[in-house]
Amino acid sequence: MSYFDAASSAPLHPVARQALLASLDEGWADPSRLYREGRRARMLLDAAREAAAEAVGCRVDELSFTSSGTDAVHRGIAGALAGRRRVGGHLIVSAVEHSSVLHSAEVQEREGGSVTRVTVGRSGRVEPSVFAAQLRADTALACLQSANHEVGTEQPVAEVAERCRAAGVPLFVDAAQSLGWGPVEGAWSLLAGSAHKWGGPAGVGLLVVRKGVRFSAQGPVDERESGRAPGFENLPAIVAAAASLRAVRAEAAQEAVRLRELTERIRVRVPQLVPDVEVVGDPERRLPGIVTFSCLYVDGETLLHELDREGFSVSSGSSCTSSTLTPSHVLKAMGVLSEGNVRVSLPRGVAEEDVERFLAVLPGAVAGVREKLGAPTPTAVVEKDELVVDALGKRCPIPVIELAKVIGDVPVGGLVRVLSDDEAAGLDIPAWCEMREQEYVGEEPADRGTAYLVRRLS
Amino acid sequence: MSYFDAASSAPLHPVARQALLASLDEGWADPSRLYREGRRARMLLDAAREAAAEAVGCRVDELSFTSSGTDAVHRGIAGALAGRRRVGGHLIVSAVEHSSVLHSAEVQEREGGSVTRVTVGRSGRVEPSVFAAQLRADTALACLQSANHEVGTEQPVAEVAERCRAAGVPLFVDAAQSLGWGPVEGAWSLLAGSAHKWGGPAGVGLLVVRKGVRFSAQGPVDERESGRAPGFENLPAIVAAAASLRAVRAEAAQEAVRLRELTERIRVRVPQLVPDVEVVGDPERRLPGIVTFSCLYVDGETLLHELDREGFSVSSGSSCTSSTLTPSHVLKAMGVLSEGNVRVSLPRGVAEEDVERFLAVLPGAVAGVREKLGAPTPTAVVEKDELVVDALGKRCPIPVIELAKVIGDVPVGGLVRVLSDDEAAGLDIPAWCEMREQEYVGEEPADRGTAYLVRRLS
Repeated sequence: MSYFDAASSAPLHPVARQALLASLDEGWADPSRLYREGRRARMLLDAAREAAAEAVGCRVDELSFTSSGTDAVHRGIAGALAGRRRVGGHLIVSAVEHSSVLHSAEVQEREGGSVTRVTVGRSGRVEPSVFAAQLRADTALACLQSANHEVGTEQPVAEVAERCRAAGVPLFVDAAQSLGWGPVEGAWSLLAGSAHKWGGPAGVGLLVVRKGVRFSAQGPVDERESGRAPGFENLPAIVAAAASLRAVRAEAAQEAVRLRELTERIRVRVPQLVPDVEVVGDPERRLPGIVTFSCLYVDGETLLHELDREGFSVSSGSSCTSSTLTPSHVLKAMGVLSEGNVRVSLPRGVAEEDVERFLAVLPGAVAGVREKLGAPTPTAVVEKDELVVDALGKRCPIPVIELAKVIGDVPVGGLVRVLSDDEAAGLDIPAWCEMREQEYVGEEPADRGTAYLVRRLS
Repeated sequence: MSYFDAASSAPLHPVARQALLASLDEGWADPSRLYREGRRARMLLDAAREAAAEAVGCRVDELSFTSSGTDAVHRGIAGALAGRRRVGGHLIVSAVEHSSVLHSAEVQEREGGSVTRVTVGRSGRVEPSVFAAQLRADTALACLQSANHEVGTEQPVAEVAERCRAAGVPLFVDAAQSLGWGPVEGAWSLLAGSAHKWGGPAGVGLLVVRKGVRFSAQGPVDERESGRAPGFENLPAIVAAAASLRAVRAEAAQEAVRLRELTERIRVRVPQLVPDVEVVGDPERRLPGIVTFSCLYVDGETLLHELDREGFSVSSGSSCTSSTLTPSHVLKAMGVLSEGNVRVSLPRGVAEEDVERFLAVLPGAVAGVREKLGAPTPTAVVEKDELVVDALGKRCPIPVIELAKVIGDVPVGGLVRVLSDDEAAGLDIPAWCEMREQEYVGEEPADRGTAYLVRRLS
């Protein structure tokens, strides 16, 4: 089995396992107690906080442990927004943030605030000037991930932080995907991390609030973790999380070079091996271990099953949308093909042979799915120079497959109208046009669903 | 070392340790993923939920795992209050609830709701008719613990639940202290538990919401845990929590008899061995492993240090107030002596010899503390039949010590006025009067602090 979904959750690092075992025996008591077992627990907690703060590059008293990365994001954003309530209720997020950030944004909207979702380029990267242009007098907080969880693109956090600082607006950074590789540079104000992304155990996140940042913890809190994360500290897991962060950092520089070479291999060779593939995400400014591509005429779920049968565990789209039927919000915001989407995120220490085997297996897996899906007959009716494809009730990737089948049936300059009620079509038909150098004319409402207009150019 | 603070946190049960180790290897992947590692994680999660639901006595789909017992309490109360917002904003809690419940109540007040804190008797037990009398047309929720964390008193949950049901008000039960001993009986609507109280790992709580109970999860949520607890599931810890709950339940009946006998020994013998002691909490309707007593003229913190030096880890007052200077809210609500308070909570499997050694060591430890504190000279001025003790600026247990020293200096029928600005005096002086059979006349404001009036009866 080759597990290629480290961006979702990384297997426990051996150092984390060792630290967890040791502190199960030493660190189960309440660190706020004064007796021996409590004092020992307190010492372990203090040491873990020091190690984590050093890795983040912050003061010890700026860092609180939370019960997950998601918990850190939710508490961090809520507290920062409340701390600046007097300034206003405007929140800025990038359109490609992790769902935990977007869920917080939805809560802010429900509670009467306003949210601006900053667009990204085709590579998934935010343009600092575009982001900064959204800063307003009533902006309470801005959020930008350090790197995207789905396509690996690194964001210009330092530049955006500088512009936010100039405007007097705190910047919250979701650093879940990058913290194992290095500290986040720049003048950010708040930061969240998640231990199971760097080989630590589940159940531990961290929230950093820089000194001087206005922060008002929301909901009930207690005396634990500086009043920012209530409930009994999950001490053995915290100790393990800090130990593994230190361990992966020690190996980071070397492993980053190795993984970058392996993902580069996938980036270059997949389009050579598999026809009609779009590799997405920034080719240079990206995390070492993530590479994402989309395959035309392929249903992502089926492809995942095929790869699973071959012994490869990969994901399609964001972890938080894998069970829904809408295309991933990240791919949507980037405007790239969403069908047949595969994210490969290599775990540290992955064997080169496994990557090679993946490259050997992928073409056959994609071809197999395409063959299965190639069957449906398009319901096409010729009308002068225009052809209508009725793909109503059919789901991705069928509408694009049917479009591809009939484009040759209209003369150059002729028009194909694809009728579809599948949300993914609005993303995938324009993406297909770009890949095939046909003209995407636009969409218009139809009696049922939407009509997508494509002009044949060649 | 003898760890006698199991009510705060129990050491990891061997079964929990074993289950945790096994699922660190098998259960680190995302259970919402479709590939092999994800499916395996999903199976482990489903099995853990079944085991936990069986132990609680609820349906599988009524139970969500949370990141701690505190998290379960906070989310449970917030969701239940929001679900019945149209009914009103009135919340009923007992005055002796765990701080996590009281923190939720404070939030409810801050947000415009109203809270009734139901008084308890001297044993710490709620009277069902008194509780039910607080139910109003605008009562959204009532909360009652299954058993008190500080004195072990069991609450009449089934009777209160019946009265709540008759009034159409859901009852939330904080079952943290009792869940390892057995299911909570009665028609409760919501329930919270905490794994590290029953020998499971930290980082796992459980929230049960009965079918048909109106519930609206607050704050950002995601698709995990029925939308009631967001963030990546802490799977190895959840598996371990469920395994240890099953294990402690299998041993519960037998171990309860044994611990009850040991705590009964402490209840009976401490007053024989140590003068001026009050054992608090219900003598019959109580948890098997908890016994709490208070020692006159003793500073609890110093006594804890003495006992720690002798190798005993106990706590004083509630875990959440041990670092503050105010008396525990539980002892306050019960109206019992708070000075020199010691909670002994025996872990499962405790050796009888350790309890005997505790009984052997305690009298000397108390006597030592009393000797140290016996020094201060009262500043007493005789005024006719009245004597004024100026204990301003002196902290518990000094005001009571000074009162005890001068009571013999006034004639029978004479009055002692104790001037004190220590909050504990309002609790401890009446308690001393009851123990010494003197008349507590009452308190009145003084130029500085408060004057506590005591009439000598014998």
